[in-house]
Amino acid sequence: MDLPPFARRSTREWQAADAAHFLHPFTDHQALATKGVRVITHGDGVYVWDSDGRRIFDAMSGLWCVNVGYGQGALIEAAAQQMRTLPYYNAFFQTTTPPATALAERLAAVTPAQFRHVFFSSSGSEANDTVIRLVRRYWDLMGQPERKVIVSRLNAYHGSTMAAASLGGMAAMHTQGGLPIPGIAHIDQPHFWAHRHGAAKGLSREEFGVVAARWLEEKIAEIGPDKVAAFIGEPVQGAGGVVVPPSTYWPEIQRICDRHGILLVSDEVVCGFGRTGRWWGCETFGTRPDLMTFAKGVTSGYVPLGGVMVGERVARVLIERGGEFEHGYTYSGHPVACAVALANLDVIEQQQLVQRVREDTGPYLAQQLANLLDHPMVGEVQSCGLMAAIQLCRDIPLRESFAPEIAIGMACRGHCFDNGLVMRAVGDRMIVAPPLIMTRAQVDEMCGLIRQALDRTYAQARTAGWVAQAAG
Amino acid sequence: MDLPPFARRSTREWQAADAAHFLHPFTDHQALATKGVRVITHGDGVYVWDSDGRRIFDAMSGLWCVNVGYGQGALIEAAAQQMRTLPYYNAFFQTTTPPATALAERLAAVTPAQFRHVFFSSSGSEANDTVIRLVRRYWDLMGQPERKVIVSRLNAYHGSTMAAASLGGMAAMHTQGGLPIPGIAHIDQPHFWAHRHGAAKGLSREEFGVVAARWLEEKIAEIGPDKVAAFIGEPVQGAGGVVVPPSTYWPEIQRICDRHGILLVSDEVVCGFGRTGRWWGCETFGTRPDLMTFAKGVTSGYVPLGGVMVGERVARVLIERGGEFEHGYTYSGHPVACAVALANLDVIEQQQLVQRVREDTGPYLAQQLANLLDHPMVGEVQSCGLMAAIQLCRDIPLRESFAPEIAIGMACRGHCFDNGLVMRAVGDRMIVAPPLIMTRAQVDEMCGLIRQALDRTYAQARTAGWVAQAAG
Repeated sequence: MDLPPFARRSTREWQAADAAHFLHPFTDHQALATKGVRVITHGDGVYVWDSDGRRIFDAMSGLWCVNVGYGQGALIEAAAQQMRTLPYYNAFFQTTTPPATALAERLAAVTPAQFRHVFFSSSGSEANDTVIRLVRRYWDLMGQPERKVIVSRLNAYHGSTMAAASLGGMAAMHTQGGLPIPGIAHIDQPHFWAHRHGAAKGLSREEFGVVAARWLEEKIAEIGPDKVAAFIGEPVQGAGGVVVPPSTYWPEIQRICDRHGILLVSDEVVCGFGRTGRWWGCETFGTRPDLMTFAKGVTSGYVPLGGVMVGERVARVLIERGGEFEHGYTYSGHPVACAVALANLDVIEQQQLVQRVREDTGPYLAQQLANLLDHPMVGEVQSCGLMAAIQLCRDIPLRESFAPEIAIGMACRGHCFDNGLVMRAVGDRMIVAPPLIMTRAQVDEMCGLIRQALDRTYAQARTAGWVAQAAG
Repeated sequence: MDLPPFARRSTREWQAADAAHFLHPFTDHQALATKGVRVITHGDGVYVWDSDGRRIFDAMSGLWCVNVGYGQGALIEAAAQQMRTLPYYNAFFQTTTPPATALAERLAAVTPAQFRHVFFSSSGSEANDTVIRLVRRYWDLMGQPERKVIVSRLNAYHGSTMAAASLGGMAAMHTQGGLPIPGIAHIDQPHFWAHRHGAAKGLSREEFGVVAARWLEEKIAEIGPDKVAAFIGEPVQGAGGVVVPPSTYWPEIQRICDRHGILLVSDEVVCGFGRTGRWWGCETFGTRPDLMTFAKGVTSGYVPLGGVMVGERVARVLIERGGEFEHGYTYSGHPVACAVALANLDVIEQQQLVQRVREDTGPYLAQQLANLLDHPMVGEVQSCGLMAAIQLCRDIPLRESFAPEIAIGMACRGHCFDNGLVMRAVGDRMIVAPPLIMTRAQVDEMCGLIRQALDRTYAQARTAGWVAQAAG
C-alpha cells in the first residue's frame, strides 16, 4: 500500500500526536491519552486494518455508514471525476450543479411516492436540526403557529447539534451544555427487554407495542393536541441499542399521528438505503412519514452528505405559500458528495443489495444469531435486515442484568477488539450493522467471532464471580 | 470535457428537474421555479462555466471557500488516494485515522500558539454549534455553571443549525422556526457606514470602533458579568456585508473580555486560511481568542469539513477535569476530508498564498477598488486582504441610501450575472471574496467587470429615476 508521506509513522508516534492534538467525539481524552488510540489505516470490503497490521472485521460499517464496503471503485472514480470537473459550487442564489439536481431527482425515485423534494445538508445532525424548523414553518404557514412541540423518545439518537441532541433522548448528552432546547418532549421507547419488569410485564411483544405507542397519545393529551407539531422516531433505534419495535408499534403511531393531524418524521439516517431489507425503514414497518431524514448510507460515508426528504403535504405549503425558507448550509447539495451518492445508488441497485438483505443475508443473519440463544449469557437476540442486537444477561431465567459497575458490554467489546471484530456495546447490549455487501460466508465468520467474544467474556465473568458458577 | 451520463442534459431539462425536486438553501422556490435555475457545470482557476457555455468570473470563491481555485490537482489526487486507502472510519471508540490525527497536528502548527487541540465537524454551522456546548461545559467544570450566556452581534453569521443561527444575528432567520434558542444575547455591529446617521455621527472611524466595542461592556453589565460565558464574532463580518471594523474595535473587545474573564471566540469560517492576509483574522486584528471555528477554506470546499480550535485555557480543563465530552459527529475527522485539507494546506504554503494576499494582491485590490470611488453610485469601498465591499449609495454627499423597495443591490447583482461576474449583494452592499490564487491581472479583470456592472446599474437607475439626472 503506497501511503502518503503524512501516513508513515509508527503506532506510538500516532498515539503521541493524537493525544497532543485531536479532541475525539464522545471521548474521555485523558483516559484515551493514557491508553493510546487505535489507528485504522486502510480498508477493503468488510475489513479494516490497524497500524499494527491486524485485520479487523468491521461489523459496524464504520459508524452505520459504509454500506457498500471499503474500496468501491465506482464511488472513488465518481468523486475524482466530479472534483476534476467542479469540486464545489453553491446552490444558493438561484444556482445548481448537475450532481445536486440529479441526486434530488434520483432520491425522489427511490423514496415512497409522497416524497418528491429534498433539502440537502452534510450530516444527519444537520438534517434533523432542519426538521425542527421545517415542521414549525409548515404550521406557521398553515395558520397554526402554536403547534411548536416535537415529540421524540428517550434513548433516541437524532444527531449532535444542540437541536438534534435535544430531539434525541440520550440522557448523558442532556447533562452538558444546557440541553435540551425548549419545545421538545420525550416519551419512553418501545423497548420490550428494557420494560420487561415494568410496562411490558405480562404482556406479549405485540400487546406491549400498542401500549408503547399510546404513550404518544397520552403525551399529546398532556401537551395539548393543538400544540404538537410532529412526532419523530427512528424505525429501529440504532445508537439506542438496535431496539426493534414490536410489529404493532408503528401502525399505532401512524394512527395516532393521523388522528391528531400531526406530522410524522422518520429518521432514516441509520435505517435508510437498505439496512432493514427495504429501501427505507418506514417501508419495513408500514408508516407513511411526512418527512424523512437521511445521511450515512446515502454516500456509504465516502463523503459527508445528509438531507431531508420533504413529503408533498409539507413541500406544497412551503413552496406555494412560503416565500424564502431562511435556512441552508454552504455544503447543501455539495457536487462531489452528490456525485458519490449517485454512484453509491448505482452500486446498491446493480448489486441488488436491498433485495439481498431482505431475501438472503438478512434472514440468514437472523438464523445464525438465533443459534447464540444457547449461550449462557445471551438473553435475547433481535435483528432487522442487517442490524442486530445481542442482549447480555446475568441470569436468563430471571432475566436479570449485570450490575452497571461491571460494564459487561464494554468488557465484551474489549474481547471483540482483541479478537479482530468491531462490535459496539450499548450498555449490556452488543450491536452490529455490517456492510450490506456481506456474503453468507461473512455472516458465518462474523457470528463465529461474536461467539468467541461472548465465550471470552463469559470466562472472564466466571473468573470474576459476576455469574453463578454453573449457569449453563 | 467528458461528462458523466447524469450530466448530459440541456439547461431547460436541468431547470425542470431542479424545480421538481431540489429545495435550495435560502430560496423562494416558487420564484426560482418560475425563473429557472442557473446550472454551473465546471470550473477552472477563478472561473466557472454554466450549462449554456458562458464563462463566469467567480469573485465569491463558490461561497467564500474555493480559496485555491477550481481544478487543483493536488487536492483531487489526495482525495482519490485516501478513498482508495480508507474512504471512511470513525474517530469514536478510541480510534483514529492517519489523516485526522495528522491534520489535527498540522492545524496546531498553523494557528496561534494558544491552540494545540482541535474538535472536527463537517461544517461551520456544526463548529459554531459545538462552541456553545464547549463554553458552557468549560464554565460548568470551572464551578461557574451560571455562566451560560453567549454574546454575539446583530447581522453576524455563524451558520444555520438552530443553535448556530441563534448565535448569528440575521433578523430574517430569526423569524422562522422558533429562533433564537435561549441564552444568547446580541449587541449591534461595528458598521461605520450603517451607523453614519446614528451612533457614528460626528465620530471618526477609530472613535466609533471604541464606542461599538463598549456595547459589549454595556451588555455584560445588563446581563450580569457572572452570567456571561463568552463573546463570539467574525473578525470581519462576511455574510453581513464584509463589514471591516475600525482598527480600534477588536483590541477594545479583547480588553473587555479580559477584564470580565469571559471567553473570546473568533469565528474564522470566512476569515481563516489567509483570506485577510494573515493565516487568521484574529492575527490581522490583534486578538487572542480562546476558541476559533473554521470550515470552508480548510479544504477550499472540495469536501465538507469544519472544526473548532480549542485553546489551552479551555482544553486543559476539558481534558483534565472533564471526563467524556458528550458530543460528536459521525464525520468528525473524516479521513477523506482531512486528507484533502492536508493537501490544501500544502498548496497554501507552497504557493505562499497568505503572503501573496498580504503583500501583493490584497493591497493591489484595495488600490484598484479605491478607483471606484469616482463612481457616482459608490459611497465607500472597504477591503481586508481579498474580501471587499462596495457600498451603493443614492446620494454621496448626503450619504443617502436607495429606497429598500428598489433593491438596488439585487439589480446590480443581476447586471453582474449577465456580464460574467459572480458578485454578491447584501442589501445595498456589493461584496467579493475571490480565490486567493488570483493574479494582479485577474484583479484588474474583476475590477473591470465590477465597474461595468456599476455603470449598467447606474444607467438603469437614471432611466428609472432612482437617482437625480446629474449626480456626477
